[in-house]
Amino acid sequence: MQPWKTRSRRTLLECGKYLTVEAHTVELPDGQVIDDWPWLIAPAYVNIVAVSENGGYLCFRQVKYAVEDTSLAPVGGYLEQGEDPLAAARRELLEETGHEASDWVSLGSYPVDGNRGLGVAHLYLARGARRVRQPDADDLEEQELLVLSRADVEKALEEGAFKLLPWAAAVALALRRGESARAPSAHHAAEAVEDRPPSKHGGTTYPILP
Amino acid sequence: MQPWKTRSRRTLLECGKYLTVEAHTVELPDGQVIDDWPWLIAPAYVNIVAVSENGGYLCFRQVKYAVEDTSLAPVGGYLEQGEDPLAAARRELLEETGHEASDWVSLGSYPVDGNRGLGVAHLYLARGARRVRQPDADDLEEQELLVLSRADVEKALEEGAFKLLPWAAAVALALRRGESARAPSAHHAAEAVEDRPPSKHGGTTYPILP
Repeated sequence: MQPWKTRSRRTLLECGKYLTVEAHTVELPDGQVIDDWPWLIAPAYVNIVAVSENGGYLCFRQVKYAVEDTSLAPVGGYLEQGEDPLAAARRELLEETGHEASDWVSLGSYPVDGNRGLGVAHLYLARGARRVRQPDADDLEEQELLVLSRADVEKALEEGAFKLLPWAAAVALALRRGESARAPSAHHAAEAVEDRPPSKHGGTTYPILP
Repeated sequence: MQPWKTRSRRTLLECGKYLTVEAHTVELPDGQVIDDWPWLIAPAYVNIVAVSENGGYLCFRQVKYAVEDTSLAPVGGYLEQGEDPLAAARRELLEETGHEASDWVSLGSYPVDGNRGLGVAHLYLARGARRVRQPDADDLEEQELLVLSRADVEKALEEGAFKLLPWAAAVALALRRGESARAPSAHHAAEAVEDRPPSKHGGTTYPILP
């Protein structure tokens, strides 16, 4: 089973640093060629399910443009130019909640859309989080920090209260991983973001766990 | 906490039925106005984690343009124009695997990107699946149908073998839901796709579970 090949690419639209639209000429394994396959380049982002030393889940209630009403959300944000995903996750956790965590587990790195790209979501579970300073978020969205019990998070997930695809993914994966003891460690997460070849995702590398 | 308002919208780019790029003028609750907020309209899609009467998980090994190498994947596809998400899920399961399922559980409906939209992912768990005919898929991608044990699926998810964000989300949510008995029923899923007001997602409605 062979991957599709990108024969050529051209830019259709540039909307600042958050979105570039390309048209790719794509070759399928059977030789079929598709012109003008739309491809979206956007910055990679992180979402972090952070659990405090006391077992509390740090969540936001917040607004987001694509979401009706408010939603529960894990910590998250875009990677800065050239930033390592794990470094971005640590930065976002500190900026948004004032917490640092002792134990980082990669929950995987996933292209957002199978046909169009739109960047990569790097998902993390951060355990042993403790408050070290005041939050200092620069997000446009209003948000309120909550500390929920695991049972509350499970119920909220089932009820669809984490309303965005990456948020539901991060929480569902974190709850699964949280059930096993603290086996995967910060070491594990650090390994997962080591050197990988650049991909078609606009130069962002995305590791697949071994 | 107030949602952001869409003051106006204009089309920047149309790429057939799979992608339209708009620029929105957005008003924040504090009165701040942002011009040229990029917004992506794409068809909604379904992903279905299908479990056979014998407890086997129906998965594909397949290629996908945004994914390096092959990946494990649940059943999935785009909604047709005006199609109900649950009807699309039943259609895709039948077309791609030749199976029908007796017990449908909605795992939620999620906008794909919090800032840009890019459609809605409707995720389902389909239990009691049984083969009723030959598959008849019209997808461009090569794919191979596999039947995995629950333990295999759990291991594959942890190893990052479901390489796309909606696939990992669907599988993680399905594994959680599958742990509880057959409480939510087809009735539940049918309810979840009832009348809702159109949203900014290009007229596609997306239900949030109660």
